[in-house]
Amino acid sequence: MLDESLLSTRTSRMGSSAIREILKVLARPGIVSLAGGMPAPEAFPMDHVEGLFGKVISKYGSDALQYGTTEGFTPLKAALAKYLNGRGIQTKAEQINITTGSQGVLDALGKIFVSPGDAIAVEAPTYLGALQAFNPYEPEYVEMETDEQGLIPESMEEVVRKHHPKLVYLVPTFQNPTGRTIPLERRRQIAEIAARHNVLVVEDDPYGQLRYRGDHVAPIQSFAPEQVIYCGSFSKVFAPGLRVGYYVAPDFVREWLIRAKQGVDLHTSSLSQALAAEFLAEGLMEQHLPKIIKLYKPKQEAMLQALRDFFPDSFRWTEPEGGMFIWAEGPKGLDTVELYHRAVEKKVAFVPGRYFYTREGAGAETMRLNFTMADEETLRAAVQRLSEAIKET
Amino acid sequence: MLDESLLSTRTSRMGSSAIREILKVLARPGIVSLAGGMPAPEAFPMDHVEGLFGKVISKYGSDALQYGTTEGFTPLKAALAKYLNGRGIQTKAEQINITTGSQGVLDALGKIFVSPGDAIAVEAPTYLGALQAFNPYEPEYVEMETDEQGLIPESMEEVVRKHHPKLVYLVPTFQNPTGRTIPLERRRQIAEIAARHNVLVVEDDPYGQLRYRGDHVAPIQSFAPEQVIYCGSFSKVFAPGLRVGYYVAPDFVREWLIRAKQGVDLHTSSLSQALAAEFLAEGLMEQHLPKIIKLYKPKQEAMLQALRDFFPDSFRWTEPEGGMFIWAEGPKGLDTVELYHRAVEKKVAFVPGRYFYTREGAGAETMRLNFTMADEETLRAAVQRLSEAIKET
Repeated sequence: MLDESLLSTRTSRMGSSAIREILKVLARPGIVSLAGGMPAPEAFPMDHVEGLFGKVISKYGSDALQYGTTEGFTPLKAALAKYLNGRGIQTKAEQINITTGSQGVLDALGKIFVSPGDAIAVEAPTYLGALQAFNPYEPEYVEMETDEQGLIPESMEEVVRKHHPKLVYLVPTFQNPTGRTIPLERRRQIAEIAARHNVLVVEDDPYGQLRYRGDHVAPIQSFAPEQVIYCGSFSKVFAPGLRVGYYVAPDFVREWLIRAKQGVDLHTSSLSQALAAEFLAEGLMEQHLPKIIKLYKPKQEAMLQALRDFFPDSFRWTEPEGGMFIWAEGPKGLDTVELYHRAVEKKVAFVPGRYFYTREGAGAETMRLNFTMADEETLRAAVQRLSEAIKET
Repeated sequence: MLDESLLSTRTSRMGSSAIREILKVLARPGIVSLAGGMPAPEAFPMDHVEGLFGKVISKYGSDALQYGTTEGFTPLKAALAKYLNGRGIQTKAEQINITTGSQGVLDALGKIFVSPGDAIAVEAPTYLGALQAFNPYEPEYVEMETDEQGLIPESMEEVVRKHHPKLVYLVPTFQNPTGRTIPLERRRQIAEIAARHNVLVVEDDPYGQLRYRGDHVAPIQSFAPEQVIYCGSFSKVFAPGLRVGYYVAPDFVREWLIRAKQGVDLHTSSLSQALAAEFLAEGLMEQHLPKIIKLYKPKQEAMLQALRDFFPDSFRWTEPEGGMFIWAEGPKGLDTVELYHRAVEKKVAFVPGRYFYTREGAGAETMRLNFTMADEETLRAAVQRLSEAIKET
């Protein structure tokens, strides 16, 4: 019999994740999950999708089903260049590459930059999926401090000076898990630190378009295009099941990312890319995005109101201007993993915050709440039940 | 400025490939490429694809656009189990996982099994894309000898005993690059050797359904399901642009492959998977496959006849019963890279065989010829021009 003694050394960093275990209960009937990170199915442009498909087939024919280049589908890259320029990102079509979801570029970045033991600097807390992408390449994580305005530039500078990280990984806008957005002035500082210390910043931006209040903030990439890899995705604004992400990166980084991707999947689904290309080219992004925002904004408001109405005074939470998450922090000593199990008995689930930290023991009193999947009434009731579970501590 | 000094140590195995360089000329107008490995666009079921899409949307609705599990789309796994059982593969739906093309599982296998310096046993010659998937995990390759009937089991046993490879990688049916098929009796021996030495065999089978003559040969997996990872794909029988592959593997291997895939792309395109599920469930595979075979069989015959008519007596070539490739071998001393450049002047391209070997200097006199992309007349003219280039040596 074959057994786990055959496994590579790097699998010691890919162990059964505690979070996967605790989230298994979500399959139980009747549980309201505030744990997910999925868009609401009502946010998909179902009424446009058959029309889009017809257009793709008549316009691109068999090209939509044939092998494509690893770099990505040319019409999609052209449409993205126009779109991204409008959002302040400095790029030309040939500087954009397509990935299988944003996840794809994170794996490739780990592969080309991280030798075992190399440092990656991350926000504390940070996006769990990025850690899962990087882990097999055996990095050492160094946490950078954050406050209500996200990453503290001085902390980044200290970490960069001390640890020389291969990558500084950031979700600057409506961060997963906190929902926080780094303000413009800090972005300028971050770009300036990156340039001064010649360090590579990964600006992961899957949520930036989901803004419910306030003004668009220019991406860090716009201040230092030679130091920043800007990563975007169609998952939150069109459909995650298509698995279409993209990035803009300095030339030599892009060349190596392509080599890495070629070994992993040759290229991203041609059909998915052609659908995304038409979605942009037909102006459906502009047309559809307001509908998503109209759907999510009241959900977020309902959750915030419920938190104010039901959560104990000892709790604080973020009030993000967009995105999909609210981050709540209980009093010191609270263990949200323990709370999780009580909450599940009351048919409500969330993600305990500790899983978003790389330091053992950090974030024990925190939790991530998602508001995109349930309706307002259900969200309110779920927060009420969650606060009952809290009060039983 | 950031530069390549930042790169990980493993990128030393991901260097600019010579083959990519020489194949750049394919973009020149007027060249007939026998170098590709793509299905003919006429082989795609274009007349069914809009109907399939409509069915997918009416049957699965937003599920076809939503995030899915890393394991794969349940209806596709169910349809595949039935289909694979019919081809002699021992499996249940829950033992099948979906990947982003077959390429996806090769990357994941490298990740979970290969520590730097670990051995991978490969046929000489072997599939180049597998090497590209494995290379970043820094294996040492050990070549196993082949003859007209593919892998020689005694050579496999010797290599396994001496080098204890983590993986024995095989394309047993209509191999890329040679087109050779390992006969039944050798498959039994290979399974027996794998079991006796407790070694993991990767049975990569993208071409098995493209049989133009002779009888189906049972997969190695059917003789040793606990030792074999069987990998298949929709790329050659439906559409490669969908990027849908699958594998059947022993339980513990599957669990680790899922963890690896989660970090790389979360899951394979839901839409692509739903289309593949309906393609199988609606019986379109049985209906469409004969059309592909009818398209490719005369192309292969035309190429074989042209080889007989034009190639010098000093050449030998395979006469495969299926697949997409013919493998030709010139006299000792021939350098097919040099020949390649002369052939390109005559507007015909192929892949010099040396790129399919892991040993420096091996295969200098060999070449891979693809016959799926051009029509019979063009193929004949291309082989004639190629033989003129040979005779000018």
